[in-house]
Amino acid sequence: MLPSPPGCPPVIADAMRYSLAAGGKRLRPVLCLASADSVGGDRSLAMPAACALELIHTYSLIHDDLPAMDNDSLRRGRPTLHLVAGDGMAILAGDGLLTEAFALLARSPAGDDAATVARKLRVIRVVADAAGATGMVGGQAIDLACAEPDRSGRPATALDADGVRQMHARKTGALIRASAVTGAVMGGAADSTIESIDAAAAEFGLAFQIVDDILDVEGVSADLGKTPGKDAAAGKPTYPALYGLATARRMAAGCLERAEDALRTAGLADSWLMEIGRWIVHRSS
Amino acid sequence: MLPSPPGCPPVIADAMRYSLAAGGKRLRPVLCLASADSVGGDRSLAMPAACALELIHTYSLIHDDLPAMDNDSLRRGRPTLHLVAGDGMAILAGDGLLTEAFALLARSPAGDDAATVARKLRVIRVVADAAGATGMVGGQAIDLACAEPDRSGRPATALDADGVRQMHARKTGALIRASAVTGAVMGGAADSTIESIDAAAAEFGLAFQIVDDILDVEGVSADLGKTPGKDAAAGKPTYPALYGLATARRMAAGCLERAEDALRTAGLADSWLMEIGRWIVHRSS
Repeated sequence: MLPSPPGCPPVIADAMRYSLAAGGKRLRPVLCLASADSVGGDRSLAMPAACALELIHTYSLIHDDLPAMDNDSLRRGRPTLHLVAGDGMAILAGDGLLTEAFALLARSPAGDDAATVARKLRVIRVVADAAGATGMVGGQAIDLACAEPDRSGRPATALDADGVRQMHARKTGALIRASAVTGAVMGGAADSTIESIDAAAAEFGLAFQIVDDILDVEGVSADLGKTPGKDAAAGKPTYPALYGLATARRMAAGCLERAEDALRTAGLADSWLMEIGRWIVHRSS
Repeated sequence: MLPSPPGCPPVIADAMRYSLAAGGKRLRPVLCLASADSVGGDRSLAMPAACALELIHTYSLIHDDLPAMDNDSLRRGRPTLHLVAGDGMAILAGDGLLTEAFALLARSPAGDDAATVARKLRVIRVVADAAGATGMVGGQAIDLACAEPDRSGRPATALDADGVRQMHARKTGALIRASAVTGAVMGGAADSTIESIDAAAAEFGLAFQIVDDILDVEGVSADLGKTPGKDAAAGKPTYPALYGLATARRMAAGCLERAEDALRTAGLADSWLMEIGRWIVHRSS
C-alpha cells in the first residue's frame, strides 16, 4: 500500500520501507482487525486503517529515535534509520509515513457507498485526534519537556504518578485506543459497542505501557529489538520505578480485569479482541 | 482552529503557534479560497482546507529549517522554531501541525450532506498525495539527497535542468496545485473545470519557484523574512543560476500566459484566481 518509484523518488521510498519492513509486533493493526472481526464486521474493510495505524506508529518511532529526541541506535533489531540514512532523511521518512497514512485512509474505490464514505471520514478524525498534539505528539512533547529544559529557559517538568499516567495515555494510549475504535467503526459497530471497546482499549493501552516498562527493566536487547534499560538509565519515570515491580504487575492485571468488564457489557468478553488484551499483559517481548 | 490547552499540552500548543502566527504570505490558503470563489462556490466551505494547507506549509518550513536539513536561522522574520524551542520540540511541532491538518479536513458538522462528506474525503486524498512522498516530502528528499551524500555512501545526486524542474514540481508545485484544486472541489466545480484549474496552478507553482529563486538572488532579508542568497551560496541549482536572470524572468512570464490559457477554457481568465497568479509573478517579496 506504499508509494513506490517512479511515482515516488527511490531515496524516500527506500527510507520509508527500511523502518516499516523491520517488523515489530504489529500490535496496532492486529488490534484494529481483531476489533472489526469481534463486532462481526468485514475485516478487509478495516485493512487500510490497520495499515495506516502501523505507518503512524512507525513514523513516531523514527522521529522518537532521532538524536534530537531519544537518540536511540537500535529499533526492531536494526540500526535506527537516522544512523543509516542521516537525520534529515529520517525526518522526511517519518513525515512521508504519517502523510501516507491519511492518503491510505482517504482512498475510496468507486464502489464505496455513502455509509462507507462517512465511516472513512470518521476514522480519519479518530486517527488524527489520537496521533496529533492532543494525543501521541502531545505525549511525546510532555516526555521531551521532562527530559530536558528547552532553550527558552522553560524548566524541565517533573511528573508525579498521575502526570506519568496522563503522559502515557497520550503517548501510547491514544493510538492503541484509536486502533480498536477504528476497527469497530469500519466493522459497522453500534456507538454503544464502540464506547465499550474504547474503554477496554484504554485499559489495554495502560497495561501495554506498564508491561513495556517492566520488560525494559527485565528484558534483553535481542528479545525487545531495542536498547533495554535505557528509560530507567535516562531517569525517565517508569512504572516499576514509581511503584516497584510487584505492584506494577498487579496494576497491569487490574487493567485486564477492567477491560474484560467493559467488553462484557458489549457481549465481547470472549472475543479475539480480549485475547489480544491478554497477550499484551502476558507477553515476554 | 488549532487545539489548545487543556486538551493540548501547552508546550506543544505554544510551539505550533509560534511558527504559524509568524505570518507569511498565506499564499496557499488564498489560492484555495480564490479558487472556491472563482468557481462560484461558498468560500466558507473551503476555509478548513485553506487552513489545513497553511498548517502543512508551516510544518514543512519548520522541518526544512532544522539543522539536519537546511539549517536556517531566520523564517518569516523570526528566529526559526528549533532555535527557540530546541530541535526535538520543533520536530514534534511540525508533526503536530501536519496531523492537525488532517483532523481539520475530516471534521464534519452534523449537518454535512453526503455530497459534502464525499468532497471532504476527496480533498483529503488530494492534500495527502500532494504533501507526501510522491509530492512535497519526495521533493524535499531529492533536494536533501542533492545537498549531501547520505551515510550509506549513496553519492549526492547532481540534477540537470529537467531534474530541477521535477524536484520543484514536487517540493513546492504539488501543494500549490492542491491548494487551487481543493478550493475548486469544495466550491463544487465540475471535473473539467477542476482540471483546467489544476493545469493553471501547475504553472503558478513553477512561476512561484522561479520568482522565489530570483528574489533569493536579488532580495534582502527584511523583505523576504528569511536568509537571502542562501540557496545560491549552498550551490543549490536555482533558475537564475541555470538560465540567467533575464531568461528566468521570461520563463515566469511564460507560465503566466499558459495559466491564463488554461483558465480561459473554463471561463476563468478574469477570475480572482488569475489575479493571484499575476501577483505570484510580479510580487517583490
